[in-house]
Amino acid sequence: MSILIKGCAVLAEGQPDGYLPHQNILIEGNRISRISPESISREGVDRTIDGRDRLAIPGLINAHTHSLENLSKATKERVPLELWLLDLFLLEGFSARAIYLSAMLGAMEMLKTGTTATLDHLALGHDLSPEALDATMQAYADSGIRAGVAPLIQDDDQVMRAAIAARPGLAELLDDDQEPMAAADYIELLDWFFRKWHRAEGVRLRCFAGPGGFQWCSDELLQGSLEVARRYGGGLHMHLLETKLQALVCFDQHGKSATRVMKELGVLGPEVSLAHCVWLDDADVDILAETDSRVVHNPASNLRIGSGFAPIIDMLEKGVKVALGADGSASSDNQIMFDAMKLAALIHNVRSTDHRRWPSTRDVLRMA
Amino acid sequence: MSILIKGCAVLAEGQPDGYLPHQNILIEGNRISRISPESISREGVDRTIDGRDRLAIPGLINAHTHSLENLSKATKERVPLELWLLDLFLLEGFSARAIYLSAMLGAMEMLKTGTTATLDHLALGHDLSPEALDATMQAYADSGIRAGVAPLIQDDDQVMRAAIAARPGLAELLDDDQEPMAAADYIELLDWFFRKWHRAEGVRLRCFAGPGGFQWCSDELLQGSLEVARRYGGGLHMHLLETKLQALVCFDQHGKSATRVMKELGVLGPEVSLAHCVWLDDADVDILAETDSRVVHNPASNLRIGSGFAPIIDMLEKGVKVALGADGSASSDNQIMFDAMKLAALIHNVRSTDHRRWPSTRDVLRMA
Repeated sequence: MSILIKGCAVLAEGQPDGYLPHQNILIEGNRISRISPESISREGVDRTIDGRDRLAIPGLINAHTHSLENLSKATKERVPLELWLLDLFLLEGFSARAIYLSAMLGAMEMLKTGTTATLDHLALGHDLSPEALDATMQAYADSGIRAGVAPLIQDDDQVMRAAIAARPGLAELLDDDQEPMAAADYIELLDWFFRKWHRAEGVRLRCFAGPGGFQWCSDELLQGSLEVARRYGGGLHMHLLETKLQALVCFDQHGKSATRVMKELGVLGPEVSLAHCVWLDDADVDILAETDSRVVHNPASNLRIGSGFAPIIDMLEKGVKVALGADGSASSDNQIMFDAMKLAALIHNVRSTDHRRWPSTRDVLRMA
Repeated sequence: MSILIKGCAVLAEGQPDGYLPHQNILIEGNRISRISPESISREGVDRTIDGRDRLAIPGLINAHTHSLENLSKATKERVPLELWLLDLFLLEGFSARAIYLSAMLGAMEMLKTGTTATLDHLALGHDLSPEALDATMQAYADSGIRAGVAPLIQDDDQVMRAAIAARPGLAELLDDDQEPMAAADYIELLDWFFRKWHRAEGVRLRCFAGPGGFQWCSDELLQGSLEVARRYGGGLHMHLLETKLQALVCFDQHGKSATRVMKELGVLGPEVSLAHCVWLDDADVDILAETDSRVVHNPASNLRIGSGFAPIIDMLEKGVKVALGADGSASSDNQIMFDAMKLAALIHNVRSTDHRRWPSTRDVLRMA
């Protein structure tokens, strides 16, 4: 299959207007084989697209989502994260087929709307298993999208521990009938996962370690899972300080911010990407800049469930590399990166009276 | 022309789920002639639409826009209102044909995306004339949309006066070569406009008085134009306190808020609709509730040009009637009310820790 796009503009950072006009693009198989202002022969081309008044851009990257939420889209009015999670995670017992379909549904929505790569922080709860991981990876393999998958795990809920310390009676009330997966078991599963799927399908699929978040994981899990990822040349993806409650509990338990503890544990660095980072102070942003850790900004879910504004202006000014995520469809309504870009370009403008600090259209496009 | 929509759900407030399932809708000419759960014969019907898995909703209302901005969409990076206006209003000298086309372009965008009524705060600057008003009304007549048009005028710039009082040298620098239209001339033009177009096309078109904003108009203009509108059973539409600078200048000049002065001038009431209302204090919101004045919330432009958050939660709780506007496309990118609804449903959630106060999906749908 070959496709010729005739006479379109091509986004190109170095150019005076930010794009090259009147280009012809030849796509052969799944590769762009030529971009040229000179005319390209139509001979042997299966399909020709008129590119006049159109702009070709690189595929967008959805750097944080939870694919299982494609099945629970728009099922709930907006409430804060902690209340929202109570309901959401009662949903378990999905078959491998349902897990495959939910990942495929998201991949289709993304591919149809200009996104060609995604990082799926795959939250399966007690359904996390080799079969569930195979189902997800197979969906991404079949869809044609580039995908990284970080199997989410939580083995120690510091928020709940703080609540139980304050009110011991809660323990009985909240007792889960199933124990969470132990850190050692997860690390073993992760090792299997990397061996089987990392850089599969011609490097199109990648594996990540996926601790749920600082406040939900033991040190052993954070350090151990990053070690596995590093061994295979992979990365770690997790939530960091999404809500004020998380920030308060972490500070209360450790006497310092979660970001600082993460640094001391050695779980920051360029291979670590952190979703949300809403409740960071100046010193935290400095730590992320210094360790070259990556941040994923999720404006839709931060607004929808009222988490707050991530300090994106400060991050950009301090050189932190910020990507953009749609987050799961239950907390953001869709997997359309143009929606995420629009929100990212709008919401920070009310955060500073100096408009020269507002994220520019170029900044936002670069994030996506 | 008759259209039959078969088997769709219909939004209906009183119903347990908020809608009636499995309805058939018959449209004859430009009227809905029947909505029924019983089957309607296809005989004589020109077109049948399968309504399964679809929801029919009333047409949305875009309660604040500036149609001429359809021609200056996405031409400018984001800067605060005052800086943004400097460039925008250098654009003048539009032909009646261009004015017609810009209104038509907006009407088409709205009709294609579910909006069937609009209030156009028509900002023509020195191009304001009977020909320009005729061109706009003709566009709305031809498009089929329901439209109200409020010809925008400014005859006294209090913000600029305050600036000149502080720095007399500015006067010369800022001297416009054309005087603004005098209040008396506008009032005469408005009277002509109401006589010719108010309730034309079977009540589908309406006229409004359209002072630019409290800080840009003389008392004579505010009171005189409302008097004309009232004489014809019409309304007044204007901006109120969109930016902090406006709020500060008004308070500085009057020793009280613009909202209070408006009340004392007698230019509030149910026939008065006020775009933005971002910089109101509690007492101002009380005044709007008490006088039953209407507010138009414009979330996209309030974010895009960094004006701030209108106190929508307080307004809803105090019973102020709040509508929703896309605002002009130069400050909001488009005339799609689903975008405005999404923003209105998202951005206020970070304004209160009590999620029971967050505007519900139902609140937002009602605004639109």
